[in-house]
Amino acid sequence: MNTTFLQACRGEKTDYTPIWIMRQAGRYLPEYHTVRSKVTFLELCKTPELAAEVTLQPVDILGVDAAILFSDILVPLEAMGAPLEFHEKRGPVFPEPIRDQAAVAKLHVPDPETELVYVMDTIRLLRKELADKVPLIGFSGAPFTLATYLIEGGSSKAYFETKKMMYAAPELYRALLDKITDCTITYLKAQAAAGAQALQIFDSWAGVLAPDDFAEFALPYVQRIISAVKPAGVPIIYFANNGATLLDLSKTSGADVLGLDWRVNLADAVARLGQDVAVQGNLDPCALLLPADKLEARVGRIVAAGKQARGHVFNLGHGILPETPPEKAKLVVELVHRLSGKA
Amino acid sequence: MNTTFLQACRGEKTDYTPIWIMRQAGRYLPEYHTVRSKVTFLELCKTPELAAEVTLQPVDILGVDAAILFSDILVPLEAMGAPLEFHEKRGPVFPEPIRDQAAVAKLHVPDPETELVYVMDTIRLLRKELADKVPLIGFSGAPFTLATYLIEGGSSKAYFETKKMMYAAPELYRALLDKITDCTITYLKAQAAAGAQALQIFDSWAGVLAPDDFAEFALPYVQRIISAVKPAGVPIIYFANNGATLLDLSKTSGADVLGLDWRVNLADAVARLGQDVAVQGNLDPCALLLPADKLEARVGRIVAAGKQARGHVFNLGHGILPETPPEKAKLVVELVHRLSGKA
Repeated sequence: MNTTFLQACRGEKTDYTPIWIMRQAGRYLPEYHTVRSKVTFLELCKTPELAAEVTLQPVDILGVDAAILFSDILVPLEAMGAPLEFHEKRGPVFPEPIRDQAAVAKLHVPDPETELVYVMDTIRLLRKELADKVPLIGFSGAPFTLATYLIEGGSSKAYFETKKMMYAAPELYRALLDKITDCTITYLKAQAAAGAQALQIFDSWAGVLAPDDFAEFALPYVQRIISAVKPAGVPIIYFANNGATLLDLSKTSGADVLGLDWRVNLADAVARLGQDVAVQGNLDPCALLLPADKLEARVGRIVAAGKQARGHVFNLGHGILPETPPEKAKLVVELVHRLSGKA
Repeated sequence: MNTTFLQACRGEKTDYTPIWIMRQAGRYLPEYHTVRSKVTFLELCKTPELAAEVTLQPVDILGVDAAILFSDILVPLEAMGAPLEFHEKRGPVFPEPIRDQAAVAKLHVPDPETELVYVMDTIRLLRKELADKVPLIGFSGAPFTLATYLIEGGSSKAYFETKKMMYAAPELYRALLDKITDCTITYLKAQAAAGAQALQIFDSWAGVLAPDDFAEFALPYVQRIISAVKPAGVPIIYFANNGATLLDLSKTSGADVLGLDWRVNLADAVARLGQDVAVQGNLDPCALLLPADKLEARVGRIVAAGKQARGHVFNLGHGILPETPPEKAKLVVELVHRLSGKA
């Protein structure tokens, strides 16, 4: 098996820098559209054969060093009892926002092997189909990020309702976060048991929190998850998006790897983080629009900075954009491999 | 006159910490709605009597230490020749996005005293009506931020078209930015000549740029503006929103004051910036939802951290939200004054 990705996560020496790409199974690939056109987004998540098919596409097409389960961070919330819809334009919508004690009380911690069995089946199917070609990454959202969707009723701009609950009704907020945390622990443990060989926790909206608020209202739940899931023995990646001012705090999460968005200079981040934690990132997804020579220079700088880290998994600093030409994604994979010395 | 704000901008010792609030003339005030309900948003910007009226509202209601001209960063772009619309839901829209050389060539550098005379008249009227009660702040957008609206055709999420132009057509990008920079220099000089006693440059979307891109594609234009406007003799504030990773670069902008969003810890920022530049900020706008005792503690920490800076103007880390109760805005002003020792 190509274990370069797992070695880098663990801070072991690797022959070259491994790469995978956030949203690598996604809308920039015509092959993805072919599958997606037959079903809704949620049906795709819930049909193991199709979810596995799109998961495998970038492994073959791009030659990345890891596969990541095709799913959505919000499906466990639906399993907790919060009706979930995906609208073509508005994105995810929770038509019944969670804003009082009664609504929190109605949520339950789902059993992954029954209420999220389609995810577990997808993982089992993928491990069989991958046949140890590359490792499989499972994932979840982080509790703060998941809570924003439930509290706002979908995506948000200022996260007003979430912060209102944090500030004005902290006990209600903590009750909700505790329940989401319990769900996430069970869910990630089940993914590892089903065969996920690494786990990424996406804290997509952590960057809207001031450092003091992050320390009080988001980080403790991530720490609890990582400490509970660690005995499963798979590397854990924590990605606090737009989290440059949260790095020192994120380092205390217990994660093996910290994901970095493109706003931070990788060399600076590595200097700040030291040798206790590996890093993942952090090319601006829009940089895939650069002419090949400039793209190569930029990839080269990130590869070189990553060599100073405890371990480095190359990735974009955010999900690949639907407008990206697939050949540019392929080029980035080739560049990372070549520039980092792959034979 | 209450010159506390101007003294703090210049790094002079002040008796207490001055405060104003971004979007202090805005939708959270019932008095604003009363005026706004009679006209469209653009009509409000273009009618000096009404623009002056809403500018003055927060000075009287909140007791802030500075007034800021009511206007919009996009009106100079309209004067450059780009048709501008404001839609109730989508926000600002430029129905003819600027994406080629012909479109850039059609833009011109407007004469502020004819093509933006309503802004100049508003400033003159305000100086008369303020009667030296508090200083008046003028403002503009920064060229990168302004360009994103022209290139995207309005607001954006990933700034894909802007970065595409930067990366794939840098000469076109530079031609557009040069023209916007020329316009901004003329516009800000005219504001100072009309009576603006300080100028703020809003780089609302600078935070979507990686530091290397900011250094290459945004900062040079800001430096050029500040160096050209400096002889006007009024303090200049540069606010690169979500710019924690851009601080060291922003320090080279030449601004007297750097605006800070709430994501950065003010004490950390002051330690990094040293004594060469004053700071402005940086309470999370959502923190106005905190119970009074917690709000006081948070304001107190920012006031204390600001005492270590060359100068500190208290502000929110972003515009005040429409959902904010006006009495909480008033409370923040009182807290800042009391906690910083106003007699």
